[in-house]
Amino acid sequence: MVCLVEMYEKPSLKDPVLIEGLPGIGFVANIAALHLIHELQAKRFAEIHSSTFQDLAVTTEDGKTRSPLNELYYCKGRDGERDIIIWYGNTQALTTAGQYELCGRVLDIAKELGCKYVITLGGFRQEEIRGPPQIYCAASDRETVERILGLGTKIMVGQIFGIAGIMVGLARLRRMKSFSLLVDTLGTYPDADATRSVLSVLSRFLHMSIGLTRLNSAAEETKRILESFGLIRNVVEEKKREEQQFRWFI
Amino acid sequence: MVCLVEMYEKPSLKDPVLIEGLPGIGFVANIAALHLIHELQAKRFAEIHSSTFQDLAVTTEDGKTRSPLNELYYCKGRDGERDIIIWYGNTQALTTAGQYELCGRVLDIAKELGCKYVITLGGFRQEEIRGPPQIYCAASDRETVERILGLGTKIMVGQIFGIAGIMVGLARLRRMKSFSLLVDTLGTYPDADATRSVLSVLSRFLHMSIGLTRLNSAAEETKRILESFGLIRNVVEEKKREEQQFRWFI
Amino acid sequence: MVCLVEMYEKPSLKDPVLIEGLPGIGFVANIAALHLIHELQAKRFAEIHSSTFQDLAVTTEDGKTRSPLNELYYCKGRDGERDIIIWYGNTQALTTAGQYELCGRVLDIAKELGCKYVITLGGFRQEEIRGPPQIYCAASDRETVERILGLGTKIMVGQIFGIAGIMVGLARLRRMKSFSLLVDTLGTYPDADATRSVLSVLSRFLHMSIGLTRLNSAAEETKRILESFGLIRNVVEEKKREEQQFRWFI
Amino acid sequence: MVCLVEMYEKPSLKDPVLIEGLPGIGFVANIAALHLIHELQAKRFAEIHSSTFQDLAVTTEDGKTRSPLNELYYCKGRDGERDIIIWYGNTQALTTAGQYELCGRVLDIAKELGCKYVITLGGFRQEEIRGPPQIYCAASDRETVERILGLGTKIMVGQIFGIAGIMVGLARLRRMKSFSLLVDTLGTYPDADATRSVLSVLSRFLHMSIGLTRLNSAAEETKRILESFGLIRNVVEEKKREEQQFRWFI
Repeated sequence: MVCLVEMYEKPSLKDPVLIEGLPGIGFVANIAALHLIHELQAKRFAEIHSSTFQDLAVTTEDGKTRSPLNELYYCKGRDGERDIIIWYGNTQALTTAGQYELCGRVLDIAKELGCKYVITLGGFRQEEIRGPPQIYCAASDRETVERILGLGTKIMVGQIFGIAGIMVGLARLRRMKSFSLLVDTLGTYPDADATRSVLSVLSRFLHMSIGLTRLNSAAEETKRILESFGLIRNVVEEKKREEQQFRWFI
Repeated sequence: MVCLVEMYEKPSLKDPVLIEGLPGIGFVANIAALHLIHELQAKRFAEIHSSTFQDLAVTTEDGKTRSPLNELYYCKGRDGERDIIIWYGNTQALTTAGQYELCGRVLDIAKELGCKYVITLGGFRQEEIRGPPQIYCAASDRETVERILGLGTKIMVGQIFGIAGIMVGLARLRRMKSFSLLVDTLGTYPDADATRSVLSVLSRFLHMSIGLTRLNSAAEETKRILESFGLIRNVVEEKKREEQQFRWFI
Repeated sequence: MVCLVEMYEKPSLKDPVLIEGLPGIGFVANIAALHLIHELQAKRFAEIHSSTFQDLAVTTEDGKTRSPLNELYYCKGRDGERDIIIWYGNTQALTTAGQYELCGRVLDIAKELGCKYVITLGGFRQEEIRGPPQIYCAASDRETVERILGLGTKIMVGQIFGIAGIMVGLARLRRMKSFSLLVDTLGTYPDADATRSVLSVLSRFLHMSIGLTRLNSAAEETKRILESFGLIRNVVEEKKREEQQFRWFI
Repeated sequence: MVCLVEMYEKPSLKDPVLIEGLPGIGFVANIAALHLIHELQAKRFAEIHSSTFQDLAVTTEDGKTRSPLNELYYCKGRDGERDIIIWYGNTQALTTAGQYELCGRVLDIAKELGCKYVITLGGFRQEEIRGPPQIYCAASDRETVERILGLGTKIMVGQIFGIAGIMVGLARLRRMKSFSLLVDTLGTYPDADATRSVLSVLSRFLHMSIGLTRLNSAAEETKRILESFGLIRNVVEEKKREEQQFRWFI
């Protein structure tokens, strides 16, 4: 199967922006997406299961079960704001091939809905954070880089891992522009402060006012959900990651 | 190939319940399914091979061979009892993707036979068991939760691994309801006592009388079969499992 | 791609027997197949590449290259002997799924050529061999078991790994009968003696006289080929194998 | 998806030679390909993404992103020189199956453009290099071997890993001839000297004059790109490679 997509509705959108919000470093994107869904009262229109998600379910307090899942939400812009598609989920794919497949499926859906612009959010792991967290950007094209730099960000230097990283290339293949916002974070817990900084840049980019008073509760909910799936842990997996990947090399 | 399904017969069933009974923690589901097949004189109607099963065969005492295999059985309810489909096998799939594929294939077959309800059984590993083993439940919807709680079970808190776990989400995608019964077990041997407790709840749910005198022989047979495939071992693999899965994370 | 099959010729055969001869324990099947190809002057009619073979080539003394490969040969029986298909190769697949796929493809070809009977050969690893090596058998059905026991073999007790093991189940799905001949071997080098014993039973089964004087040179050639691919090694991999396979378990 | 190919142009070529230049031992092929693209002012006509590449992006100094990618370039021969297709990229595939798939796709494209001849380049790792590096060859057929030996090379003895290795077999299946040029290298850094030696043989084979003055800058650029992807490292991965591959064996 790889990906199984169930679409409840095919929304009619005008030039929507796709915002990716899956769990990752500092859980920044995940908190931000959940918060946006709440604040913008976004509507769920698709659910995605993948055979490269974990093979388990977790239980909720009332005896129901929750599966590893990705979801797509939309909200129509008010007063000339842009339409938005939010890609939310409680997991990324467990394999590299699964990541590419998932990303390709979501981009295909977004493109069919008229999307030409993709935004990914993420954390940039630091050993130590002093002062307010810095926001970094990387983009598909020079024009977008300039635009995002104008919002008070710096140029990102390094690697962007996972879905946020492969979105760029796969979006470009579909003639979509894209940029990433990354923010300083220790990366080991759901970082509401880092998320707040990212959302503040994002809201300026979208010319959209996003209330931030309820952000902490989105961070709390993110923590609860990801803990139930065993996805919040202290272990630094990056070393293992490297070790697994370069089978063909040297 | 992934899954190769050979259907001997397409039984005509009325609103059947699918009961999953593959090897897992405490081998509870596997013993229960084998016992039900014996007691209900269920009839085999399909066999499933998967390229994600082990690549070996084992020999039987009379010189014949036995392959890693899943099977589907049915029995027509007597005196107004419900029709039942039993999913039995000597293995689960060895990969996450294989688990999803296998589960999806079986659910597709069950749905085509009119099934709208799925039950999974399993063990809930404990370090120590004092007194009679407790039964826990988790379900797709609040109504089912209430119904199963009424049979003397508690709400399950935690993760449900493997096929039993992914059944929930994949069943929901096919508009099927489902619940899991999990029972305290040490988990390291085929646990006839734990199975007896689960079957007693199950028989009340199905309004069906299930004789339990021959349960020990089903446990013995389960032990023999799974030992021949090298599937009964003392090693706790959960830690390894965790280590393998979170490649994309942090 | 998984498997890429190139058929040079579609031979017209009458009720042929398929004999599997890939590298495995003691390299018994591999030596036997190579020897049969030489002795029976079998003709190559198909070559199979798989994306689950090693990703390398080896060089030969004259500067040419040799790829990981499986091949199918046939020979028409003389004087009422049966037609034979020989499945030869310098490797098995590297993944479980690859093994199933490869096996399925070869069985499909064999079935299309009228084959209803499959023979696999292999070594049965022993710590120590005293006296002439014993031959063991396992078969798809009781009648075949009796027939092979009548040739001086014993009933095999244990697991049959790899292609030889999965052939049984996949052949049965295609309504083909099958049996395995396994022979005592230390398993760590190309064992010409063990191969000689197996071929002697096989020739009686096939009512076919197979010269054995040149068997040692087939063993030598097998050694040379497999060493060039790095496939002859002392390491016991079985433990690792176990560790890798049971991800879903306990 | 496995491979996603975007062709910008379908060039009209006459009997072109395909030259493979992906990162590998000593980065010889990768430097050579980049240098050829520069020197011959080759034109990019296709880009290939694969779900078996790394799931990340890297940033460039000006804030743009770079994805794991393979590309195809062509240049039309001047003054009777042969047309050339150059296969360049910043990565090989991360899995064996991915390597086969990638290679098959590129060969299919090359064949459709009239290619009947494939050249792969690579390093031959040595513990120590004394004097000018020796060039070794291996080829699909005896005639080609002789021709390449005539250019001052020796016969390669050993294994050719990765894409360079599997090209041979997959090219042969498509009725294409091929040869490999391998050169002594320590293998742990982008080796401009080794590349220079290989290019000198290649230019004689192609009867083409290739300027080498700017080769060092191609080596520098290769180093920068591969370092950004984390692909230049000191670790000897070959042992790990062996350990991973022989799951089915002994």
